[in-house]
Amino acid sequence: MILDKIKKENDIKKLSKAEVALLPAEIRSFILDNVSRTGGHLASNLGTVELTMALHLCMNFPEDKLVFDVGHQSYTHKILTGRKEGFENLRGFGGMSGFPKMSESDSDAFGAGHSSTSISAAMGLVKARELRGSNERICAVIGDGSMTGGMFYEAIDQLSSFKSNLVIILNDNEMSISKNVGGMSKALTRMRVGESYNDLKHSVETAITNIPDVGPKMARRIKRQKDNIRNFFLPGMFVEELGLTYLGPVDGHNLEEMRSTFEKAFRLSHPILVHVKTVKGKGYPIAEKHPTHFHGVGPFDVETGKNLTRKTQATYTDVFSKALMEVGSADENVVAITAAMSRGTGVHEFKKNFPDRAVDVGIAEEHAVTFAAGLAAGGYTPVVAIYSSFLQRAYDQILHDVCLQKLHVVLAIDRSGIVPGDGVTHQGIYDTAYLSDMPGLTVIAPKNAQDLLEALRFAVSFDGPVAIKYAKGNAYRGLSKVNAPFEPGKAEVINSPEGCSITIMAVGNMVEEAVAVRDTLSEEYGAKPGLISVRFIKPLDTKALKKAAEESRVIVIMEEAVRCGSVGEMAEAHLYEKGIDTDVLHFCIQDEVLPCGSVSDLRASQGMSREQMAEKIAERAGLKRRID
Amino acid sequence: MILDKIKKENDIKKLSKAEVALLPAEIRSFILDNVSRTGGHLASNLGTVELTMALHLCMNFPEDKLVFDVGHQSYTHKILTGRKEGFENLRGFGGMSGFPKMSESDSDAFGAGHSSTSISAAMGLVKARELRGSNERICAVIGDGSMTGGMFYEAIDQLSSFKSNLVIILNDNEMSISKNVGGMSKALTRMRVGESYNDLKHSVETAITNIPDVGPKMARRIKRQKDNIRNFFLPGMFVEELGLTYLGPVDGHNLEEMRSTFEKAFRLSHPILVHVKTVKGKGYPIAEKHPTHFHGVGPFDVETGKNLTRKTQATYTDVFSKALMEVGSADENVVAITAAMSRGTGVHEFKKNFPDRAVDVGIAEEHAVTFAAGLAAGGYTPVVAIYSSFLQRAYDQILHDVCLQKLHVVLAIDRSGIVPGDGVTHQGIYDTAYLSDMPGLTVIAPKNAQDLLEALRFAVSFDGPVAIKYAKGNAYRGLSKVNAPFEPGKAEVINSPEGCSITIMAVGNMVEEAVAVRDTLSEEYGAKPGLISVRFIKPLDTKALKKAAEESRVIVIMEEAVRCGSVGEMAEAHLYEKGIDTDVLHFCIQDEVLPCGSVSDLRASQGMSREQMAEKIAERAGLKRRID
Repeated sequence: MILDKIKKENDIKKLSKAEVALLPAEIRSFILDNVSRTGGHLASNLGTVELTMALHLCMNFPEDKLVFDVGHQSYTHKILTGRKEGFENLRGFGGMSGFPKMSESDSDAFGAGHSSTSISAAMGLVKARELRGSNERICAVIGDGSMTGGMFYEAIDQLSSFKSNLVIILNDNEMSISKNVGGMSKALTRMRVGESYNDLKHSVETAITNIPDVGPKMARRIKRQKDNIRNFFLPGMFVEELGLTYLGPVDGHNLEEMRSTFEKAFRLSHPILVHVKTVKGKGYPIAEKHPTHFHGVGPFDVETGKNLTRKTQATYTDVFSKALMEVGSADENVVAITAAMSRGTGVHEFKKNFPDRAVDVGIAEEHAVTFAAGLAAGGYTPVVAIYSSFLQRAYDQILHDVCLQKLHVVLAIDRSGIVPGDGVTHQGIYDTAYLSDMPGLTVIAPKNAQDLLEALRFAVSFDGPVAIKYAKGNAYRGLSKVNAPFEPGKAEVINSPEGCSITIMAVGNMVEEAVAVRDTLSEEYGAKPGLISVRFIKPLDTKALKKAAEESRVIVIMEEAVRCGSVGEMAEAHLYEKGIDTDVLHFCIQDEVLPCGSVSDLRASQGMSREQMAEKIAERAGLKRRID
Repeated sequence: MILDKIKKENDIKKLSKAEVALLPAEIRSFILDNVSRTGGHLASNLGTVELTMALHLCMNFPEDKLVFDVGHQSYTHKILTGRKEGFENLRGFGGMSGFPKMSESDSDAFGAGHSSTSISAAMGLVKARELRGSNERICAVIGDGSMTGGMFYEAIDQLSSFKSNLVIILNDNEMSISKNVGGMSKALTRMRVGESYNDLKHSVETAITNIPDVGPKMARRIKRQKDNIRNFFLPGMFVEELGLTYLGPVDGHNLEEMRSTFEKAFRLSHPILVHVKTVKGKGYPIAEKHPTHFHGVGPFDVETGKNLTRKTQATYTDVFSKALMEVGSADENVVAITAAMSRGTGVHEFKKNFPDRAVDVGIAEEHAVTFAAGLAAGGYTPVVAIYSSFLQRAYDQILHDVCLQKLHVVLAIDRSGIVPGDGVTHQGIYDTAYLSDMPGLTVIAPKNAQDLLEALRFAVSFDGPVAIKYAKGNAYRGLSKVNAPFEPGKAEVINSPEGCSITIMAVGNMVEEAVAVRDTLSEEYGAKPGLISVRFIKPLDTKALKKAAEESRVIVIMEEAVRCGSVGEMAEAHLYEKGIDTDVLHFCIQDEVLPCGSVSDLRASQGMSREQMAEKIAERAGLKRRID
């Protein structure tokens, strides 16, 4: 194995030409072997093997700085910087992150997870280099999908004033996660089909100079318009118009072509965008054919491409997908909006049936929310389906455009709570905090599949801003007969035994855990705890809280949210102000960075496994275990 | 007065041609008279008188929809839609907003305050129109400064897929608030100096068709590149490359030219960008000469342009400006970053002295923060100075790029707390909530001028993410001798009399109020309250809190922040969990939309005037007023 010779960064440079030529196949096998076992990002990583190798042949690590956008294409980089062993426990608890991570390696110049940050971060590194007067090479690798995010433009707008080198590799696979949308994508298509930019530029210049009679007149125009000549019929004019030199397109699976192009690009004294065309899933035909499916996968069979973990139960996303179909069929004012996550959020089904009433805006969460606000102002009922951690980007738009104007926008927040695998950057544990401070926003956390449907029905018929948040993973099917009608700000009492000394108030997906904990407390300790689904995070049902606190000796609050701004904190503050003295036991995420891992590992790390919680409650309530 | 004939929307259409011609001068006088008395946005409103009139001559209100970006150019629109009387109490409590506001008039199709939202919102209205099958006219007016915001691109990227009319007016005055920066701005300059787009397009097409020999070859190229002909040497190619038709530039002070151009634009069956050139401050020479100063002003003398409210005291911005100079002079690793608010945030002084170490990124808060994170990763110490309400836009970047990576970025947050005049969209009352949930972020609220300097010194020498927040308005100069050294997470005890039954814990600018309240309680009630400056919002000094709670019967917490996620809520939850039973009286902003008005009016509306607080505390503590 040639791969055995790669033990640390820069080892690739010691390989012979023949070895380098054979390496891509070995890396692809390695990635395929590992990802098929652990799950992870596949298609994007298979597509960037040669691209990353070419960069590693040009750059020195850790001195030089390579910044990946989103970062789900960094596996080859990890392999080439001494982290092969990390793939054993990729995305596992205590294991290697699936994204670049500064704390993991000096060769990871900047971490990522969300889209469109790479150029901004790389520009910071460039500015630092300019101030320091050093000469390390700096490179950002960004996919074409990330170009729909506004940050990309904010960055390149400023980049025109930069006077030193920065190589931006546009990894163009014609997709972000789903097929790309929008004007930029069309401009890229024109760039793709166009002749090589520099060849054409040269031939056009020559042609114009040689035109008799008309030539001089055009030349005067050219002079007046200064260097706009470069934009003549050409690909790349879009980026050049913003002051950025363009080079390409280059074949992203031709190592030698890329290496020599990158070398050239690094020698320039200004920023440059190198356009590289890659194929998502390259080398694994099944993934090439189904790149969206193989973007992020669980364990699968390499021969057939089939999932090894059989899906037996509907996820909350599936339930939302069906619920959206139902409410959208019944009410033709409903318009679904998604940000490049049509399938991930379950909007695709509605989109297929009602193409006019479903809009995919690309990776553009800010625009998605304000666009929805405009739709609401125009009399329609937008349902904006975005993952919790990505919706963070629209904090200002939710507050400024939706809440302050009291507009009826429904936010459907998927991946709320602990998110397994992807790790720190994808945790949905901040939404309770960042939504609860918004004036007039109603925030709902349904307890099970049926509740999610009811919540969406309620939200669509509501008047005002409303958010529904639900977790990644299988939808809870229990408590199917508990189904109190939705009333704004009213919690759902699941059971409230006479004189119960313990009442558990659980938020959203934690109701499922609470049921298990309740049963444990009942079976093992003979206790009869009450159980309430908080349902409305905002406005919080302070009446139900007060009643429970007055009746019980211990109130247990369970939520997958950071402590500050949590339901527990709101509840405690309320009880304190009202002078109601009870013992509150609050299970939540501590004020620390939550790493990657499985949901159960991560819960356990927070003292939130069923066993831990049951034990803690028993201890606090002074319960004694039954002896069988 | 012709203006007297304008009593409601559409009245402008009843005027004779001669009256219309005379109206701009009257509107300018009206604006000048009123703004010189009440304060408000001047230069941008004087610049858009004819532009707005031209739109009102083309559109019917409230059926047609006009969306202003930012909205500080909407005064003429307010005048023309029956709101002249509102200028009596412009920006006052209970008075008319300085921005468009849906609840104020049916003719305000969408509210604003922050930048770059107009096209997204207008697109929502267009989508609603398409679904409804109605035919109202929809128009967005956006300044060139707003084009540096990423949302602009997110919106026009999607706009290319829109098949019905939307008129986007680019109000190009070559400035946002300060002089514009960036590649887009340069592209606009090229557009400005270029010939009229359509004339040039026509002549180029003719020229190419007529070229012998070379013509056919070029024609083939043209065909292959489809409609890229329109980009030939031309202004406007940037927007056209993104799929948006361009028309202009048009003289923004020629009413007839605009009216006929807009009429033409509204008749198209697709979106179009009309480029209008205006002069900020038009018609008032002093403002034309100093447009940045006259962007937003207090009351001033029309003859001389001089402020009527004499500035006697340094503001927190002034203090920060000096402090930045001091720490930046002492430490050459400090780099200042601002987002189009060099003067507003006080960074201009540092920029003048250290141009290499000051970066204005334009209206691009997201990029600003991630760029800062890159600088920090590169070994420098960025100080990012942004207003509290605008920093909301970088919530995700602060969390994802700064906090999760534990990078040493200093956020200098101006306009934190209640913001007078500008109203709902500019209130800095959410920052405690949106910052406190971020893992590992230190958040400081200095009590006075000296404390702000010390806080910045501390923050720059700290290692990790740190935010300092301070209010708009004069810096408190009292307590000048109280100056405990900064220790992470340690509150500052200002006075703690033996056995005090009341302890006031105040956050940031509320310390000044707390001193007054303490003195009132002492003078009028003979009480001797203790006083603590919270200083560190995060991590909160729970030891000091515990001690105070154990010693006092009443703990008073004062902060200009919304309740949810506030210091008070954190404190109450903590005391509750620890089982410390005290009476907590929490003064904060209620969970409602805070309107415009003066600081004192707004505080009084929240029960937070000095008198209200003193009385409430006395009542709660059972104090009796002394009889003199």
